Amino acid sequence: MLSTSTPDVSTVRSYLLSLQANLCAALEQVDGTAKFRTDDWTRPEGGGGRTRILADGPVFEKAGVGFSHVRGTTLPPSATAHRPELAGQPWEALGVSLVIHPRNPHVPTSHANVRFFTTTPKPETPNPQTAPQAAWWFGGGFDLTPYYGYEEDCIHWHRTARDAVAPLGETLYPRFKKTCDDYFFLKHRAEPRGIGGLFFDDYAEQTFDHSFALQRAVGDAFLPAYLPIVERRKATPFTDAERQWQLYRRGRYVEFNLVWDRGTHFGLQSGGRTESILMSLPPLVRWDYDHRPAPGTPESRLHEIFLRPRDWASLSDAQLSPLHSPLPPP
Amino acid sequence: MLSTSTPDVSTVRSYLLSLQANLCAALEQVDGTAKFRTDDWTRPEGGGGRTRILADGPVFEKAGVGFSHVRGTTLPPSATAHRPELAGQPWEALGVSLVIHPRNPHVPTSHANVRFFTTTPKPETPNPQTAPQAAWWFGGGFDLTPYYGYEEDCIHWHRTARDAVAPLGETLYPRFKKTCDDYFFLKHRAEPRGIGGLFFDDYAEQTFDHSFALQRAVGDAFLPAYLPIVERRKATPFTDAERQWQLYRRGRYVEFNLVWDRGTHFGLQSGGRTESILMSLPPLVRWDYDHRPAPGTPESRLHEIFLRPRDWASLSDAQLSPLHSPLPPP
Repeated sequence: MLSTSTPDVSTVRSYLLSLQANLCAALEQVDGTAKFRTDDWTRPEGGGGRTRILADGPVFEKAGVGFSHVRGTTLPPSATAHRPELAGQPWEALGVSLVIHPRNPHVPTSHANVRFFTTTPKPETPNPQTAPQAAWWFGGGFDLTPYYGYEEDCIHWHRTARDAVAPLGETLYPRFKKTCDDYFFLKHRAEPRGIGGLFFDDYAEQTFDHSFALQRAVGDAFLPAYLPIVERRKATPFTDAERQWQLYRRGRYVEFNLVWDRGTHFGLQSGGRTESILMSLPPLVRWDYDHRPAPGTPESRLHEIFLRPRDWASLSDAQLSPLHSPLPPP
Repeated sequence: MLSTSTPDVSTVRSYLLSLQANLCAALEQVDGTAKFRTDDWTRPEGGGGRTRILADGPVFEKAGVGFSHVRGTTLPPSATAHRPELAGQPWEALGVSLVIHPRNPHVPTSHANVRFFTTTPKPETPNPQTAPQAAWWFGGGFDLTPYYGYEEDCIHWHRTARDAVAPLGETLYPRFKKTCDDYFFLKHRAEPRGIGGLFFDDYAEQTFDHSFALQRAVGDAFLPAYLPIVERRKATPFTDAERQWQLYRRGRYVEFNLVWDRGTHFGLQSGGRTESILMSLPPLVRWDYDHRPAPGTPESRLHEIFLRPRDWASLSDAQLSPLHSPLPPP
């Protein structure tokens, strides 16, 4: 759905830059030691970005938080296959992307993204009555990829996601959760990437203010969704076998991003900044031929219980698996 | 180019199975310790394969040698975009693929592949005069991906490739070398995967016997091209920093195979056996954000001297870089 209400690009930009700064500050605080480095870059065709990377921290083995704001004078037809009326218009795309690879296998990997796309009418259009309409939309979401499943973490994650978007519409959470489950799926393994979360795209409903409020609700909910899980698990003792399982499962992350992720593919094939696009890849990964965890192990339970779509937000404590302790007191 | 001479599928199959057995036996002998495991598999739509994997050897950290022979009743239009007359015909595809990831960073990673594709006329065609023509072609090649460059290794590799195909045509080596350089190229990094070798596809020239002889020449040349390099480098002492460079460079291998390799993409998206397709992925890989080797180091020399197309086969000893020792005595 397209909306013709006037987008305020500079306000979106300000929000995204402050979101990036807040995310990095909070992650540095939780890590306690490592700091983000900052790379500002420009794009020959217009615009640029700020890529921030934290590496080798005690809590976060790698974290990347990227901001980009890129422009073009002529929207390529491939970007507008189902919107031919936008082809050839000037466009802008802004976004913040985050991927966190923790060191401890009991802390899940996490990904978040919020983005905004707008086209603007050509200023030199001779007849304003026939000028192309401006069109804009938001996209984004966040999803969680555990190596070891903890039901209380999944419940917290999904309840936070649900509560974040509830003020903007009761139907949004189930709709965005399903889109997330559908999108983060490795077709070649018939396997979800993780336990999902929220995912939306082409969102331009009601007004610009409403749609922008949705983007902010999602962006602002990431830290409350993720950090309590990090704090709860970061000191969990782990064995070398658990570490190797984490490295093995990280291979699935690479497979999804390089084989299926539309943003990664589009970025790499269209001349985006490779190092900023591939900041999502894990710091260390292993592949083992035809590895299958033994039945009854926590590794096997990841597949059986967690890597399948489930209505985590509605699960009550009483429905938790007896193998798991109830939620800790707040 | 299509040829109508009658293909002999069973002879190709016998050659490929014996090639797989020979490759595995020779690699086990060089490794000295690890053995190949064997997985036979079938494909619901027809045919199957034999995947053989060696893991954790002292010389070879991972080696995969796969044979497959798959069939279909109806060639999909996507496989015959520039040969519409073949759409809907029964088809068979046979091949052997090999990827070797050595443990020592001074031993290059290597890949080889030989394959054969054929379509057969529908037996129930009412009028034999208008039956679709049989069409078949061969493909294959081998390429080398060093972590540390040794000019004498590159010369040996390319001379062996050149000499292998020379009896079948003087123009074949330069033609297949260029195709290899063009194909194994990471467009998103403007960087070759390695030093190349041979690559050919859709090869159906002169007669079936000639084309099959070319396939055998390439398949049989792999061990003489690769094993002397393994023997020469496998005991080279290496530091942890060199090991980390190897893991980092292996990331490029993953990026090529998952983002650009047509066979991998087609296999994963068309429901091929995932574990057999992804046996090519390295056992352990790292990604570091925006890593750049210091100027003047061997790591930097890899980019400057080796990761660019070069006529290695014609290079004389006198043209070798003074940093390198001449070829060792035979």
